[in-house]
Amino acid sequence: MLDYESFLSTLARRTERSVIRELLKLTRPGSVISFAGGLPDPATFPIAELQEVTREVLSTGGRTALQYATTEGDPVLREELVRWMAKDGINVGRDDVLITTGSQQALDIVGRVLLDPGDVIVVELPTYLGGLQAFRTYGVEMIGVPQDDDGINVQALHSVLTRLRQEGRRPKFLYAVPDFQNPSGITWSRARRERLLALASEFDTLVIEDNPYREMRFLGSAPPPITALDPEGRTLYLSTFSKTLAPGLRVGWMAGPQFLISRCVTAKQAMDLCGPALTQAMVAVLLARGTLLERLPTVVGLYRHKRDVMLDALAREMPEGVSWTRPEGGLFLWVRLPEGVDAGAMLKVALEEEAVAYVPGQPFHADGSGQNTLRLNFSYPSEAEIKDGIARLGRIVRRSVPAPVHTVRRRGTTVSD
Amino acid sequence: MLDYESFLSTLARRTERSVIRELLKLTRPGSVISFAGGLPDPATFPIAELQEVTREVLSTGGRTALQYATTEGDPVLREELVRWMAKDGINVGRDDVLITTGSQQALDIVGRVLLDPGDVIVVELPTYLGGLQAFRTYGVEMIGVPQDDDGINVQALHSVLTRLRQEGRRPKFLYAVPDFQNPSGITWSRARRERLLALASEFDTLVIEDNPYREMRFLGSAPPPITALDPEGRTLYLSTFSKTLAPGLRVGWMAGPQFLISRCVTAKQAMDLCGPALTQAMVAVLLARGTLLERLPTVVGLYRHKRDVMLDALAREMPEGVSWTRPEGGLFLWVRLPEGVDAGAMLKVALEEEAVAYVPGQPFHADGSGQNTLRLNFSYPSEAEIKDGIARLGRIVRRSVPAPVHTVRRRGTTVSD
Repeated sequence: MLDYESFLSTLARRTERSVIRELLKLTRPGSVISFAGGLPDPATFPIAELQEVTREVLSTGGRTALQYATTEGDPVLREELVRWMAKDGINVGRDDVLITTGSQQALDIVGRVLLDPGDVIVVELPTYLGGLQAFRTYGVEMIGVPQDDDGINVQALHSVLTRLRQEGRRPKFLYAVPDFQNPSGITWSRARRERLLALASEFDTLVIEDNPYREMRFLGSAPPPITALDPEGRTLYLSTFSKTLAPGLRVGWMAGPQFLISRCVTAKQAMDLCGPALTQAMVAVLLARGTLLERLPTVVGLYRHKRDVMLDALAREMPEGVSWTRPEGGLFLWVRLPEGVDAGAMLKVALEEEAVAYVPGQPFHADGSGQNTLRLNFSYPSEAEIKDGIARLGRIVRRSVPAPVHTVRRRGTTVSD
Repeated sequence: MLDYESFLSTLARRTERSVIRELLKLTRPGSVISFAGGLPDPATFPIAELQEVTREVLSTGGRTALQYATTEGDPVLREELVRWMAKDGINVGRDDVLITTGSQQALDIVGRVLLDPGDVIVVELPTYLGGLQAFRTYGVEMIGVPQDDDGINVQALHSVLTRLRQEGRRPKFLYAVPDFQNPSGITWSRARRERLLALASEFDTLVIEDNPYREMRFLGSAPPPITALDPEGRTLYLSTFSKTLAPGLRVGWMAGPQFLISRCVTAKQAMDLCGPALTQAMVAVLLARGTLLERLPTVVGLYRHKRDVMLDALAREMPEGVSWTRPEGGLFLWVRLPEGVDAGAMLKVALEEEAVAYVPGQPFHADGSGQNTLRLNFSYPSEAEIKDGIARLGRIVRRSVPAPVHTVRRRGTTVSD
């Protein structure tokens, strides 16, 4: 065989396979109950509407919908997106919007346009794995800042930015997933969003707001997107219809200052010329008709119910010393096991002995911490699978969690038993 | 305004906007007759078939077609592609195939997986502009090797490879577009393909075979793809359904040694997670039914006719000293003006005075040569537009071409008049 390795780029040698994508392979039909993926429930896909819309798009505009699009994307869809974002207080024009292949491509474009090897960026601990993977590609240093229940810890962020300034370094951007974050499920308060922008201004850096779950709010009132609070044009806003409509269309977008979007368009030209005009036209019609907004309450209701089922099951099945978030929306919740329990090692046991899957938390941490954390997805499994799967997971966790000190002394019994 | 420039990556500062994409804006409805684009004729789009196939795909497999796909792409489509390539003598397995967003994304992936800044690659003079743009992104040195009517000049290639070896450098790959090349329309003979592989073996380098037009053969017999002649696994094969079916589906692919494809999959994970499952499933059904093969003769017949119309018009309208290729297939032909005529400067005049557009040849040349060349597309304009447009172009060329020396002496009249 040829020495293929000798032809690889530094990047290809450095890049690891996506833990998420490899784990998605666990979600294939079989006996495993998986909380590992991040898939929407296919019951939410508007199949009949899409059949009808496709028929119409092909009948009335097939010659455009099957042709090359401009790199920026379908102009009608971009107009619709301007209106879609305006309802959340984001004011941009059509030319400030670029359609992407899901928001993952937007993350890659951000990296390509903004990052050089050796640059530094700031991310949350934990944060979206796909973001870490996209940015890592560009050889940057990622500094993690912890979260609490209200979002990023702004004192810790201030310390990081101050330290960097003392070192003569400016982060290219702060990466934020402020609504029902993947993986933690945490939503930032309005005060945290404002404080982040104040710090971005003070330290003259940009903000990447990655907001794929915003429409998936189960309860409580929504603080404005960071982008809507930004008077200075420091924010790029990224989102997608993968959760609200269907991921198989691969329609995401990014919006922000024209100077930066224009550079992003140039980058995308060399990456794939343009996205699929057909699926872009389909989404444009669904937005124009209001189908998306009409459907949202049903989708949100389903996921709220599944979240509740999972929260009830966790309360029933988990031993003392285990805690978890209660997300106000989104697809995920986050479990913290007692210190010293390794969720990565436990996964192998969970798969082998109980046929239940989740994603260990460590890969979501830029600093390699989070060994005792894990992410659970509640959007994809059925109600019955959630109940059964959390019971299985509870058994594994009980076996993995060391008995509390006072019960160890009493030998063999634990409070949580 | 913020100093956005200060946030840009080296690459974003370096990247130029695509000449092709900017020129595509000239193809919008209006009075300009454009030979500048590379668009298929929308009359070839199988709109009715796609309506029917979409209905079926969504009815029988909507929950899969609207969900995230694996990064590798729809497994049924990859099986179909194995059969599709086998008819041309390319023998690969399903896991040696990666579905991409057109073949442009495959070019970007090739760059990401194989190229580091400062690496050297070898390309044809001229070659596909999108390839140059994708590879340039990675900061490589591109060495151009001239073509003649049978493909790349293998003596010149041998000289380049020998010189590089003397300098202690090995090109990462040789980039070849062997069938009806964009932009030149030239097809490589079988001997040239074999010689290229022999040189790749001798100098231990890889071959990227970009073959989007292979099915578009008007006449003559087809030499095998380079990949089919390669016993050593040195070749990555790239193609697309953008010309045979419709570009708006954005379904392209790459195939080759499992070691390299596997690295390409990993790279694509960080780039967009996966392509659109819906359009992949649609193409898979059309392939399985044989719709694509059945339709090809009609598509090829249309383009052959348009090529003939353009060749006749050129013979009628162009002055002495102008030559052009007679492509056996594809979408383009290539015009050479007399030395000293600048096709780039002439474009502005052509647009302003005759409302006719083409692409100047220089951007297709890695070494900046080719000022006196231009590319004409014959797939998109109508027969009437081709006749009228070439007449307009003929008037511009006559005005731009200096009169031959013996006629200048006779003042005011030229042989070609």
